[in-house]
Amino acid sequence: MYHKSIISLFVLSLVLITLPLLGQNDEDARFIRSIHDHSLTDSKCYAWLTHLSEHIGGRLAGSPESEAAIRYTYEELLKIADTVYLQPCTVPYWSRGQKESVQIVNKAGQRQEIGGLALGNSISTGSAGIQGNIIEVHSLEEVRQLGKSNISGKIVFFNRPMDPTKIKTFQAYGGAGDQRVNGPAVAAEYGAIAAVVRSLTLQTDDVPHTGVTRYKEGIPKIPAIAISTMDADLLSTLLSEGQSPQIFIRTDCKMIDPDKASYNVIAEIRGSQFPEEIILVGGHLDSWDVGGGAHDDGAGCVHSMQVLETLRTLQYKPKRTLRCVLFMNEENGLGGGRAYAEASNQAGEYHMAAIESDAGGFTPRGFSFDGLEENFVHLFRQVVAWEPLLDTYMLDLDKGGSGADINPLKSQGGLLVGLRPDSQRYFDFHHTANDRIDAVNKRELQLGAAAMTSLVYLLDHYGLNQH
Amino acid sequence: MYHKSIISLFVLSLVLITLPLLGQNDEDARFIRSIHDHSLTDSKCYAWLTHLSEHIGGRLAGSPESEAAIRYTYEELLKIADTVYLQPCTVPYWSRGQKESVQIVNKAGQRQEIGGLALGNSISTGSAGIQGNIIEVHSLEEVRQLGKSNISGKIVFFNRPMDPTKIKTFQAYGGAGDQRVNGPAVAAEYGAIAAVVRSLTLQTDDVPHTGVTRYKEGIPKIPAIAISTMDADLLSTLLSEGQSPQIFIRTDCKMIDPDKASYNVIAEIRGSQFPEEIILVGGHLDSWDVGGGAHDDGAGCVHSMQVLETLRTLQYKPKRTLRCVLFMNEENGLGGGRAYAEASNQAGEYHMAAIESDAGGFTPRGFSFDGLEENFVHLFRQVVAWEPLLDTYMLDLDKGGSGADINPLKSQGGLLVGLRPDSQRYFDFHHTANDRIDAVNKRELQLGAAAMTSLVYLLDHYGLNQH
Repeated sequence: MYHKSIISLFVLSLVLITLPLLGQNDEDARFIRSIHDHSLTDSKCYAWLTHLSEHIGGRLAGSPESEAAIRYTYEELLKIADTVYLQPCTVPYWSRGQKESVQIVNKAGQRQEIGGLALGNSISTGSAGIQGNIIEVHSLEEVRQLGKSNISGKIVFFNRPMDPTKIKTFQAYGGAGDQRVNGPAVAAEYGAIAAVVRSLTLQTDDVPHTGVTRYKEGIPKIPAIAISTMDADLLSTLLSEGQSPQIFIRTDCKMIDPDKASYNVIAEIRGSQFPEEIILVGGHLDSWDVGGGAHDDGAGCVHSMQVLETLRTLQYKPKRTLRCVLFMNEENGLGGGRAYAEASNQAGEYHMAAIESDAGGFTPRGFSFDGLEENFVHLFRQVVAWEPLLDTYMLDLDKGGSGADINPLKSQGGLLVGLRPDSQRYFDFHHTANDRIDAVNKRELQLGAAAMTSLVYLLDHYGLNQH
Repeated sequence: MYHKSIISLFVLSLVLITLPLLGQNDEDARFIRSIHDHSLTDSKCYAWLTHLSEHIGGRLAGSPESEAAIRYTYEELLKIADTVYLQPCTVPYWSRGQKESVQIVNKAGQRQEIGGLALGNSISTGSAGIQGNIIEVHSLEEVRQLGKSNISGKIVFFNRPMDPTKIKTFQAYGGAGDQRVNGPAVAAEYGAIAAVVRSLTLQTDDVPHTGVTRYKEGIPKIPAIAISTMDADLLSTLLSEGQSPQIFIRTDCKMIDPDKASYNVIAEIRGSQFPEEIILVGGHLDSWDVGGGAHDDGAGCVHSMQVLETLRTLQYKPKRTLRCVLFMNEENGLGGGRAYAEASNQAGEYHMAAIESDAGGFTPRGFSFDGLEENFVHLFRQVVAWEPLLDTYMLDLDKGGSGADINPLKSQGGLLVGLRPDSQRYFDFHHTANDRIDAVNKRELQLGAAAMTSLVYLLDHYGLNQH
């Protein structure tokens, strides 16, 4: 009896909370249905992504391809937004140059060519290349413990794998990424002549993954390169067998211009009632140079563009200002994100919500939400009330990070949101030559756009009460 | 104030309902974590699936490949179960024979070869083939309305697409599948000489999809073949332009033995406390002959085998009897499923729960549950209490269908359960030459096995109270 009455209270409270929303919800449900219908049958996102990935290709910040992508998306956005403009920002323009050579050299001097990709910002080895003894480590801390006596004059091989037991693969990436981002700089501090990093993926394959590395001021720069997980395993086996292989690296990469002018592409539909309340949707237009930057982050760009296209096609007139921002240079320094936030803060803008898609074009599982400590719980509670409407589309709403480009907007006090697609396959393609349109399933991409559009609709329709 | 007190009641009731479970849940959470750790690092399911798909290949019921799959899984299960045995069943053995020819023939007699796959059970056209005028229809009802005067002597072309706006793609499949399963028989009833069916997929591509068709007693059988969605669109365009193309079909398929002896493969770990309460995990071992039957349903077989392997490796001693059943002939008549249910009912067995995996090896989204009307709500309520434990792994529990092989067990009054992987890509590969191991992501497959093992653990540990 006791238990039963508790359950009755539970049910009663549910009913009382839900009742006032019912009429409204029918209209919302119908509109969210029409968003999905349009996205799955008549949307442009897949065609846009095909163009970005296959006709333009890898769009490294500062490169001619990044400039072609700016022109292309500007032209496309003109067709679906009231206002489109370019926002200046400064980016480093680094270039890979000639294809890298990485060789394992055995005691007899025999050479085995393996694949490799210089890390972004890496200096070149020079045309003669660099050859040396290898020391395998599994953390930055291990380099520090080994110290100069063990590291100096050697090539440091960072070989800690991503943790396969993490269900969310971004956590596994986060747990291993310091080796690529900071490993070479730490190795240089202790006198290493180069750094080789195990590719950041959960696959065991022969595909190298590039990505940014950061040097430290006042420490000599050393060449840094990623090798595939299969080659990393091979090298580790040879070392553990005491075969003392050396490694030879030749790279041709260089920083062409550390302060090149570039642009964010911004499109806006001005709000009819509360134009000063901005809802941002965005992704980053730059990518790594290998592959087509299809999942990272062409998908996020076309998701965001599709939000405007869908709402326009459905003749929805937003009350609030919808702004689609294609950020430049997320991959190599966040120049675009910083420029956007600075301009926005200077203009005294208020981003009621900013949603970034930068986790691939896979089936959307939901959104993660972030904000200022003082009002986050209050804002998030309002959003969670919409969960039943999104449940039909198997979308969950959780607390968590949003996106690197929009993070600097947090001080404005709105909600920061990340689209969360299924993450299992993301690091199979991330920063590789395989991140091409054929790695993207059209429906999965479309569903991501529909998810973002649905959330934008709810945010625009209901707004967020700040207090 | 009013609203606040309702919310307080809501929170209070949640706390009171949850409290008694907390201590137990810690132990459960740890065990479910270890299930996932093992599945993602040291499981055998991907290697088993590679063998089934690539070394054995398509396993049509009655075929030599199906017999090889029976031997292989029997041997593998011997390593991980107390008892392994083969259960006799009867299956039709149909064979495709030589590769099909399908041609579009224009008015000038020019022939364009397009791809095609005879439907399972179809009769052959004979070596001369069949050529005739085409009538395009979009439903079985349309055939009936057109009647004999319009259908007789023609080749009926069923061309209703799957509905892309369905979020769960199995609903889209269900909405179009009657054309393949029953279309040819209905066309034959009205005098058609052959039937051509648009492939059941949401992709627009050049890949034909086979699958079962059923003839009607007392009606002459006609040849039936599937063509790709791109070829279906082409044919439809030519027809709508008034170009009156004919179609030529040549197939070599035949029913070799309508009553061939075959087997289900069954492995059991007997329960220590309640051996008479059976928890079944299963998939179907047969597949179509083209491709490797990787997603359909090699994945379900290795998911089910992995449940036993994981629990054995973790030294879990089940209280209830765990039975892994690899059913024969789901694709072409359910011979294995029927034989299993008959034997089980005759023996007076009680399946407390039966879980089938027959929706591919993609990231698991949860489970759907079914049962007898009189006790389903009561049983389902007990399962839903475990949802917080599965939430960490993003698994939802819903009402819905289970699986074709286990459905005949419903009368035993237990829970019938279907594993529900993400369905967006399933029909890209379903019943095609592309359903091979390279269409399966290893982690996604492993997560499916981990999800099933976790549910089996909870069912075994807590049991289900019947009343």
